[in-house]
Amino acid sequence: MATINGLERSYYCGDLRKKHVGEEVTLMGWVQRRRDHGGLIFADLRDRFGLVQVVFNPEESQEAFKKAEDLRKEYVIAITGEVIARPEGTINSDLATGEVEINVNELRVLDSAETPPLQISEECDAGEDLRLKYRYLDLRRSDMQENIVLRHNVKKAVRNYLDDYNFLEVETPMLTRSTPEGARDYLVPSRVNAGKFYALPQSPQLFKQLLMVSGMDRYYQIVRCFRDEDLRADRQPEFTQIDMEMSFVNEEDIISLVEGMMEEIFDTAGLEAPTEFQRMSYQEAMSRYGSDRPDLRFDLELVDISEVVKDAEFNVFSGTVASGGEVKGINAKGCASFSRKDMDELTDYVGIYGAKGLAWIALREDGISSPISKFLSDEELDNIIDKMDAKEGDLLLFVADKPKVVAAALGNLRQKLASRLDLIDQDEFNFVWITDFPLFDEAEGKLVSLHHPFTAPQDEDVDLLDDDPVKVKAKAYDLVLNGIEIGGGSIRIHNRDLQQKIFEILSLEEEEINDKFGFLLDAFEYGTPPHGGIAFGLDRLVMLLGGLETIRDVIAFPKTQNATCLLTEAPSKVEKSQLEELHLEIENLEIDID
Amino acid sequence: MATINGLERSYYCGDLRKKHVGEEVTLMGWVQRRRDHGGLIFADLRDRFGLVQVVFNPEESQEAFKKAEDLRKEYVIAITGEVIARPEGTINSDLATGEVEINVNELRVLDSAETPPLQISEECDAGEDLRLKYRYLDLRRSDMQENIVLRHNVKKAVRNYLDDYNFLEVETPMLTRSTPEGARDYLVPSRVNAGKFYALPQSPQLFKQLLMVSGMDRYYQIVRCFRDEDLRADRQPEFTQIDMEMSFVNEEDIISLVEGMMEEIFDTAGLEAPTEFQRMSYQEAMSRYGSDRPDLRFDLELVDISEVVKDAEFNVFSGTVASGGEVKGINAKGCASFSRKDMDELTDYVGIYGAKGLAWIALREDGISSPISKFLSDEELDNIIDKMDAKEGDLLLFVADKPKVVAAALGNLRQKLASRLDLIDQDEFNFVWITDFPLFDEAEGKLVSLHHPFTAPQDEDVDLLDDDPVKVKAKAYDLVLNGIEIGGGSIRIHNRDLQQKIFEILSLEEEEINDKFGFLLDAFEYGTPPHGGIAFGLDRLVMLLGGLETIRDVIAFPKTQNATCLLTEAPSKVEKSQLEELHLEIENLEIDID
Repeated sequence: MATINGLERSYYCGDLRKKHVGEEVTLMGWVQRRRDHGGLIFADLRDRFGLVQVVFNPEESQEAFKKAEDLRKEYVIAITGEVIARPEGTINSDLATGEVEINVNELRVLDSAETPPLQISEECDAGEDLRLKYRYLDLRRSDMQENIVLRHNVKKAVRNYLDDYNFLEVETPMLTRSTPEGARDYLVPSRVNAGKFYALPQSPQLFKQLLMVSGMDRYYQIVRCFRDEDLRADRQPEFTQIDMEMSFVNEEDIISLVEGMMEEIFDTAGLEAPTEFQRMSYQEAMSRYGSDRPDLRFDLELVDISEVVKDAEFNVFSGTVASGGEVKGINAKGCASFSRKDMDELTDYVGIYGAKGLAWIALREDGISSPISKFLSDEELDNIIDKMDAKEGDLLLFVADKPKVVAAALGNLRQKLASRLDLIDQDEFNFVWITDFPLFDEAEGKLVSLHHPFTAPQDEDVDLLDDDPVKVKAKAYDLVLNGIEIGGGSIRIHNRDLQQKIFEILSLEEEEINDKFGFLLDAFEYGTPPHGGIAFGLDRLVMLLGGLETIRDVIAFPKTQNATCLLTEAPSKVEKSQLEELHLEIENLEIDID
Repeated sequence: MATINGLERSYYCGDLRKKHVGEEVTLMGWVQRRRDHGGLIFADLRDRFGLVQVVFNPEESQEAFKKAEDLRKEYVIAITGEVIARPEGTINSDLATGEVEINVNELRVLDSAETPPLQISEECDAGEDLRLKYRYLDLRRSDMQENIVLRHNVKKAVRNYLDDYNFLEVETPMLTRSTPEGARDYLVPSRVNAGKFYALPQSPQLFKQLLMVSGMDRYYQIVRCFRDEDLRADRQPEFTQIDMEMSFVNEEDIISLVEGMMEEIFDTAGLEAPTEFQRMSYQEAMSRYGSDRPDLRFDLELVDISEVVKDAEFNVFSGTVASGGEVKGINAKGCASFSRKDMDELTDYVGIYGAKGLAWIALREDGISSPISKFLSDEELDNIIDKMDAKEGDLLLFVADKPKVVAAALGNLRQKLASRLDLIDQDEFNFVWITDFPLFDEAEGKLVSLHHPFTAPQDEDVDLLDDDPVKVKAKAYDLVLNGIEIGGGSIRIHNRDLQQKIFEILSLEEEEINDKFGFLLDAFEYGTPPHGGIAFGLDRLVMLLGGLETIRDVIAFPKTQNATCLLTEAPSKVEKSQLEELHLEIENLEIDID
């Protein structure tokens, strides 16, 4: 396998089994721990493939034993010795190699080690900052190594699958031009073309469409993308995308290809392949779950009681309905005994999403408890209880507001309740395709693309573009896994006039259109196949497959929420001369430049 | 395969053979050309997989025939029809599908097309600027599609091979910190950490070493790297590297692994696997070929005649030797009849590389012709002729100068002569490993790393580091194919003290060492395995495999020498607000910012 100091590594530590007994082997790795017992020195030797116990016996080799007396945790050593069966009673069934040990006759210390600042063990109680600063030690932990191996295997499965389906891997530029993906670009100043800037890609969207124009037929790339966002919960400035595009296809072609790919990925990850990919329209998802990425591992559906309460004396309800809003509720089954403090917490929580309050009705053993029941007639109360399928012991929670606020507040409340009530089967993988998205969203009085401006409208809605664009549905589809959007895509516009019209609806100026997208519109002049695609967030997907909480655990060298690398201390100050070459100066900042 | 407008694509155009005769098929693609003949319309239909002839016969379908009358080049169409055998005498043996044609009964025009500004044909006589501006059309040409497919296949072969050898693909950051690879970094201003900058990686060198520290054992990545250089002949600001690193290995382990990988790659490319990987020390390569990347497909070796001419009357020779220089020559066999103009051209050529002149001796039928022979004794002339194995008809060319200048001048002259004399077998793939590089080079009175500062010195030379560092040889190796360096690597330093010493020899200040490399030095404290690696330039490798002249032909969307993308017009001006967010201002440039 590999040779060092004249020794040739013959096995990995984790390889050895009973069948190797009697073999002379050479292993290389790290000392996981060392114990002295009965005149012998025992050490666990570790490499990427596992652990094995090695024994230094002065009767086997006085010299090796002497050297072993200096061994400490994380020393790097090479040993040669005979594989022997462990004596009865000392077999370690927790360890794959637990039936054997190595009787060492030669030891070379390849490198010594200081005591590491964090423990190299499966579990790690070090804080994340320490783990990131010493990432090279954190990555020695078997948990982290498994994550990296899983990521490797997922990529391999994706490539093999797509290769079987005639996809070509094509690399697209990193130093490119800003395209409107909705987030802020990272800019790269050009020195040769001083005063001008490249943008790092938020996605290879335009290039992959151009590859379809060029007849490549099927493209994929596992590609780094960049967004300079204010980092929320679990985002990274750079992330990896499984990016795909196909010619001559419709939505169903792409969906069925992706479902097959997911099955391969699950197989690779050693997980049971998903048996069902549900489908749900955007409209239904928003209405029933208050989210376009609903977690369907649990119920807690939103129930619309607007009709029931529209004439109620309780003006918060009836007034909201009268002014075009809605009243929806969730039945938190068995939660009637929530305390006043619990209720205050939940109310604060929905407040984050803009809800002005959280009305509630608890169906307790001793009757209804509710701050609002006095404003509701018995009939209204009965109808609500009936509509919400409520029984004794249930707690009904309501938000009355504009539909967007109701969806956001209850959609998130639903998730919070599920965690609190432990309703989620952590071993379940629940897939749902969300379809029939609106093409446009309204923001600050302007129309914006819900996905991106290259998404095709549904054929039957094209006529609505002029008069009622908000009603137009898109040929778009997102794949949601356990409440997390892992991928999204669409059939694209492949016609110049239609693309131009969309830009205009989005209020882009003629000049901006030509400047930023002229080349795409031009490309559409020369024979463009119908095409569409999809892109997956690899980091999130691997995180979910690994049952992990954060994408930082599936990225070898991630950045903090402050977009810094604690290991290398990037970003850093640069030399004044470097800025001069770029004709740049730092302005309005009190900062020392070397 | 794929469905559009209710038609389901059943084959690719290039798939169809005689065995399909009688089948009803649906194809989708581009109209390559159309001809009307004998009341029928013939079109060649093209997709990524080939061409097939389709026939519109009004007796088969009046409707399809009518529509076909509008077809022009590059229209995108879908057709359904029966595969029929071509009549005897109309079989086209140049075409894989030449025995059949499709009798069309249904035609859908999916998109029309303007006349393309460049011809979609195998050969292309359009200028490169036009090809780059309309890259999506250039990529329709079968030559370019083959290049992209070759690149895809090479990457696949590399991945499969490395996977078999337990390499893990690990992604390293793009937004990182400047490391000294010798070229200028591309900088990315940070907004969140205003006044600070990320650097795009020139290579993932430090990260891959840290992955070895972390016990990943074997790492690879096919990764984009960036260098902001003044673009010479065939460089790109971004390029792709096959990057590898292994623990517990020596030079031989890496070399033998790479040789196996090259065999796989050649196999994939449909080329005969290389039978021999020669080895040559840096010293020998420089001495015999004047280059550390010698093209060994032809001889024209450099011959040292310093000893022969050291006492010559001709002072240009003897004086050079006396002052520590050398005199070397090339025997251009059969070139005695070169004209005075030829000689002037060659003299100008070596002048580019610093040579002050080019002495020559032509062994013509009518005797020796030479401007310098009168300054040489008969014995000296005889010795030169003897030493250079010269015969009648040969032309001997000499440069006398410092060794570096002689090597550069004659090394390049050698290459020029080989082209001119057509000495190169274009089908040969000649590999040579160059080994035993010096660890340091001298530049502007300072020592610099010949490779990079992480390269380990050879064990027996470590003692020379203090007293005679220029004599220290490195554990480094470059792989040269046909005179082009396709890869280079080394065994790395894995010891803090030695690494620190190297930094000091390179005249790095204590502060700079800690600031830029402190984390690497720290990492070496915690048990670091011996390790080494190599990196290959994918673009160059694929270019050579494809028998191409420029790496731009193996990159889907390359940039010009001016580092611009003619398709998207990147880099471009950015909004003032974008610069404000970054606290940057453009200085000393007359440029309009929108």
